[in-house]
Amino acid sequence: MTHADLLDRYAELIVRSGVNVTAGQELVMTAPVDAVPLVRRITEHAYKAGATLVTTFYGDDEATLARFAHADDKSFDTAPAWLFDGFANAFKAGAARLAIIGEDPSLLAGQDPDKVTRANRARSKAYRPALELIAGHAINWCVAAAATPAWARSVFPGKAPAEALDALWRAIYTCSRADTPDPVAAWVEHSRKLRQRTDFLNGKRYQALKYKGPGTDLTLGLVDGHVWKGGASTAKNGVTCNPNIPTEEVFTMPHKDRVDGILSSTKPLSYQGTFIEGIKVRFEAGRIVESHADKGADIFATMIATDEGAARLGEVALVPHSSPISASGIVFNNTLFDENAACHIAVGQSYSDTLANGGSLSKDALAAAGANASLIHVDWMIGSGALDIDGVLADGRTEPLMRKGEWAA
Amino acid sequence: MTHADLLDRYAELIVRSGVNVTAGQELVMTAPVDAVPLVRRITEHAYKAGATLVTTFYGDDEATLARFAHADDKSFDTAPAWLFDGFANAFKAGAARLAIIGEDPSLLAGQDPDKVTRANRARSKAYRPALELIAGHAINWCVAAAATPAWARSVFPGKAPAEALDALWRAIYTCSRADTPDPVAAWVEHSRKLRQRTDFLNGKRYQALKYKGPGTDLTLGLVDGHVWKGGASTAKNGVTCNPNIPTEEVFTMPHKDRVDGILSSTKPLSYQGTFIEGIKVRFEAGRIVESHADKGADIFATMIATDEGAARLGEVALVPHSSPISASGIVFNNTLFDENAACHIAVGQSYSDTLANGGSLSKDALAAAGANASLIHVDWMIGSGALDIDGVLADGRTEPLMRKGEWAA
Repeated sequence: MTHADLLDRYAELIVRSGVNVTAGQELVMTAPVDAVPLVRRITEHAYKAGATLVTTFYGDDEATLARFAHADDKSFDTAPAWLFDGFANAFKAGAARLAIIGEDPSLLAGQDPDKVTRANRARSKAYRPALELIAGHAINWCVAAAATPAWARSVFPGKAPAEALDALWRAIYTCSRADTPDPVAAWVEHSRKLRQRTDFLNGKRYQALKYKGPGTDLTLGLVDGHVWKGGASTAKNGVTCNPNIPTEEVFTMPHKDRVDGILSSTKPLSYQGTFIEGIKVRFEAGRIVESHADKGADIFATMIATDEGAARLGEVALVPHSSPISASGIVFNNTLFDENAACHIAVGQSYSDTLANGGSLSKDALAAAGANASLIHVDWMIGSGALDIDGVLADGRTEPLMRKGEWAA
Repeated sequence: MTHADLLDRYAELIVRSGVNVTAGQELVMTAPVDAVPLVRRITEHAYKAGATLVTTFYGDDEATLARFAHADDKSFDTAPAWLFDGFANAFKAGAARLAIIGEDPSLLAGQDPDKVTRANRARSKAYRPALELIAGHAINWCVAAAATPAWARSVFPGKAPAEALDALWRAIYTCSRADTPDPVAAWVEHSRKLRQRTDFLNGKRYQALKYKGPGTDLTLGLVDGHVWKGGASTAKNGVTCNPNIPTEEVFTMPHKDRVDGILSSTKPLSYQGTFIEGIKVRFEAGRIVESHADKGADIFATMIATDEGAARLGEVALVPHSSPISASGIVFNNTLFDENAACHIAVGQSYSDTLANGGSLSKDALAAAGANASLIHVDWMIGSGALDIDGVLADGRTEPLMRKGEWAA
C-alpha cells in the first residue's frame, strides 16, 4: 500500500475506532503543524462521520523554541487559560477531543530546567478544567500519533531524514494495526481480547500487586472497588471510544497511601521536552520519599514536587513483554507507544472511572477511597522480560500474575 | 535582499509598527497554515518585543473545503463559539490581536450559496463578542498578509505557481514598505502624512460628501461629531498600532440614515470565498433599497440581508487613485490591499472610535447619533480615476475634495 493509502486508512481508524466522533458532534483536535496531511484526512473522515464542526489547534515546536530563546522571564509563568477554558467549554457543550501527538521528544533538553518546569506548571494549571473532563471520561476522546521529522530523527538517529520519517510512519501503522486488511475490524477483535483480560482481573479482586525485578521490589496496593480497564471504553456521554491508539495495556487505580518498596524504570521517559533516564525511587506509605535518576534528575525531582499528589501513584498498568510494540524493538521516546511496550505506573492524577462509581464521587470521597489527585499525570515504564508480578488475594494469599514479563494466569 | 531577509523585516514591521505588541502583553494570532514561515518570524520578534505568550490559531482552506464536501447540512449553522469567546476573553485580559490573512479568494465559489451564507452568518454571530472589542479599539490589533499558493494563483493566473507566489510576496513587501531601507521609519513618516490629511478633514467638519462618477451619483451624510482616522491609532489600552498593513486610507463614520443616490463598485469584491462583481445599488434614507451585481448577485443580496444594519453604511474611506497599491496595477482580490487602491465604503458595523466619544456611548446612544450596527463589516471599492467628490460644509456650500480620483484640496 502507498503511504497515501495507509495515511487515509489510519485517519479513518482514528475517527471511527479511536475518538468515534458521532453524528451531530463537534470535534476539537490538536496537532503539530507537521501533521497537516494527516489532520486533513482526519477532518474529511470526521465530517463523513457526521461531525458538525472540526476545529484544529496546531502547535509548533519552533514557536516553543522561539519562546525559550527570546521571551522575558515572566513569560514562563504564563499559559493560554483563555484557550484551555475554551476547550473545556467545548467539551461541556458536547465536543469530542482528539490529540495528535508527534512533538520532538528532546525539544527542550537544552533549555533552563527552571523555565521548563515553570512553563509546564503554568500550562498544567491552566489546562486543569479541560483535563478533568478528559480524565473523568465525560466525553469520547483519543490520543494518536503523527510521525514528524524531529521525532523520527530521535527514534532513528542513524537514518537519513526521509528514511527515518518513513520508518516511523511504518512503525506507527503497524503498532496501530492500520496496515491490516480491515483495521476497524482488527480493533474490535483487539478490544475483545483486552476485555477478556480486564474481566479476568476484575474477577480476582486483588488487594495488591507485588513486583520483583532488577532494582524493583514493590508492594502496590489497589483501591477497594478498583476497576480494571483497557481498550474501548464508554464515556459518560454514552459514546464508546478507544482513548489511545495504539493501546496494549490494562490499567486500574492504585491506592495513593498503600505503595511501599523500591521501583526502577526500564525505558527512558520523555517528559515535556526532556529525557529522564534510570529512575530509581523508594515509596513509603504511597509517597516517593527518595528519588534518583541517571539523567534528568533535577527535572524528575521538580516534577514529583509539582504538588502533593505528584509523588503518589494515579495509575498502574500491565502490558505483556511480548506486545507488538515491544516486539517491534523500537524505543519510540514517546509515552503513547513506549507505555504499551511495558508494564508501567503513573504518578499524579488518577482516572476516576477506574474506581466503581468514581465518576459520581466528590473530591473528598475520592481521596478517602485512595484516589490520587494532581495537576500532572506522567507514565513511566517499569516492565521488562525480567519482571515478575504476583497478585495478592483478599485473604492475603498470593498467586503468580506475570512471570518474566508475560501473563502467568 | 533575499526572500528570507525580506520575510524577517516584514515580520518585524508587523510586530513593531503593526500590532506593536508591548512588554508583558499576550499576542493572539490567526494565520493560514501556508503562513508558517512568516508566523515563526513574527513569533520570534513578538517575544523579542516582550510578549509573554504568542498563541497562533491556524486555519486551513482544505479543512473548510472538506466541510463543504462532506459535512451534514446542520453543520452550516454551527460555529466554534467556544474559540471566539476564548479570543474575547484573551482580549479582555489584555491580549493584542494579529490576523495574518492569505486565504484563497474564490475558495467557496463552487459551493452551495445557501450553505456559504449560513456558515458565514453563524460564524459572524459567534465572533461578535471578539469583533466588538476590535471594532471598539479596546486593544491594539493588526491585519497583515502572507502570500499563499492559492491566493497567488488567483492574482497571477498566467504565471507558474512558484513565480506567482514570488510575485505576490514582492507585491506585499512593496505595498507594505517592507523593502525600504528602514521600514519602521518609513511607517512613521507615512503615518505622519496620513495624520496631516485627517487633521485637514477633521478641521472641515463636512456634513456630507457628494460622489459623482460612472454609475455613481450619491450624497453620503456624515455623523455629527465624526472623526477622520487613518494610519496609526491609539487603542483604549493606550497602545498605538497600525491596524492595517498596508494602509493608504483615511476613513470616518457615515450617518446610517443619511445616504441617498446610486453607487457602483469599481473592483471585484471577494466576500468569504466568493467573488461579487459589478455591484450597483440605490440608497434611500441610508438603506440599500435596490441592488444588482453582474456576478455573485445572490450572495450579495443575502449578505446585505444579514440583519438591519447590513444594508446600511458603517464606514466611508478616501484613497487617492495614485496610491502605491493602485500604482502597482495589481488587483489583489483581497480587501486589505484593494481597499487601499481606491475610495471605498463598507456596509455593516461602524467603528465607534470614528465618532467623538463613541467608545463611551451606549448602543442606543450610538444608534441615535447615526452609528450603524451589524454582524458584518464588508468593504467594497467605489473609487477610480473617474471619481469626483465634493465636501458639503456646515452652511451647505460645497467645495471640491477629490477630482479624477486625486486630492483636490
